[in-house]
Amino acid sequence: MSVLYVAGIGPGSDAFLTSEARMAIERADVICGYTVYVDLIRDRYPDREFITTPMRQEIKRCRMAMEAASRGRTVAMVCSGDAGIYGMAGPLLEMSPEYPDVDIQIIPGITAAVSGAAVLGAPIMNDFCVISLSDLLTPWPVIEKRLRAAATGDFCICIYNPMSKKRPGHLARACAILMEEKPADTVCGWVRNIGREGQESDILTLGELAGAQLDMFTTVFVGCSETRVINGRMVTVRGY
Amino acid sequence: MSVLYVAGIGPGSDAFLTSEARMAIERADVICGYTVYVDLIRDRYPDREFITTPMRQEIKRCRMAMEAASRGRTVAMVCSGDAGIYGMAGPLLEMSPEYPDVDIQIIPGITAAVSGAAVLGAPIMNDFCVISLSDLLTPWPVIEKRLRAAATGDFCICIYNPMSKKRPGHLARACAILMEEKPADTVCGWVRNIGREGQESDILTLGELAGAQLDMFTTVFVGCSETRVINGRMVTVRGY
Repeated sequence: MSVLYVAGIGPGSDAFLTSEARMAIERADVICGYTVYVDLIRDRYPDREFITTPMRQEIKRCRMAMEAASRGRTVAMVCSGDAGIYGMAGPLLEMSPEYPDVDIQIIPGITAAVSGAAVLGAPIMNDFCVISLSDLLTPWPVIEKRLRAAATGDFCICIYNPMSKKRPGHLARACAILMEEKPADTVCGWVRNIGREGQESDILTLGELAGAQLDMFTTVFVGCSETRVINGRMVTVRGY
Repeated sequence: MSVLYVAGIGPGSDAFLTSEARMAIERADVICGYTVYVDLIRDRYPDREFITTPMRQEIKRCRMAMEAASRGRTVAMVCSGDAGIYGMAGPLLEMSPEYPDVDIQIIPGITAAVSGAAVLGAPIMNDFCVISLSDLLTPWPVIEKRLRAAATGDFCICIYNPMSKKRPGHLARACAILMEEKPADTVCGWVRNIGREGQESDILTLGELAGAQLDMFTTVFVGCSETRVINGRMVTVRGY
């Protein structure tokens, strides 16, 4: 039985890596991941084998990791944020019946909903939803249905992949849907490059968010009816 | 300006502590938290001052931490899981206008939705909600509204505080509401004592979950229409 660790490494800097994730990387013969993230840690582990693939080649990356593990190597697949939230834990487990000799161990990490919230204040102090606006893997009508449901439930909402060059209008469309239910002055916020060089953030209204020009390195937070700006921070009041 | 760190320490064991949270605890003169959690780390920091309060005395705890910081001490308020998800980041920021000389720094941690998911497989690989069934701070009709909204949106749902001695029927009521929309054979799972001694977990159907006897140390996961059992793990298929 060889081990394939699937480890979330948090938002990018070492500060948010857990001991468990560090240990998995240190134990591995082969480190596997998205080219951009693996390049960040490559220099620290000069004696390891690296397997990287660019974006949109996630399945190929998983297959290569599984093949290496089934040849007896200890493999660490690293994911930014958490491995189980829009990460590689799912596709690897889907392949697992084909590789009965590989023990997949999933190591949790700090996802952007959690690290971004800490930058803005405490926006998801109460019940919340996480929704990705990327329609590469989820059809847009399903995303719309979830936005409407989240607004109806008065959840705090954390939005991943709010827009990209290929999807410049997604965030504005999402805000328009949310404003069918939520007032335009609902407190919102965004954080870009969380925990990395060039971290930026802003607190603004839902109406203003609809016109904001963001990118795929940004995580967005939409407040609920209990969300306020207190001392410049975005805080969802829980009513203690 | 003195610093008050609000640090999530993850599910309990050192393995899931981030470097940043460890550093905050090490820098602090005063360590503050819920009695049970602070007792876990007390022996490691024999030269520190400790401030603890039992459950239901969260506001008193926050006030004591703020007072200590405003007297010039460096304070670390530790929370299990993440500080910003049902944690102490919110109430402390709500008090911040009264303490302009205290710099509140929030350090994210691994919340039970993330650590519990890793134990079960990959149940929240796609859009998900987190809902607490505790009606101490949120009225039950609001919780019901959110459960209905989450079911309508076909979200994966992570449930905190599924039941306790005082709320023995909450999980069964929640499952009945979810079954108005979701089939009774929806894949579900639960994890108890995540990352701690005596960790247990199970995968079962929504119909079975309605009759399960769990407790407040358990985190529950309810799948969406894309959730399957693969090789004994709970996996939400994302359609790569």
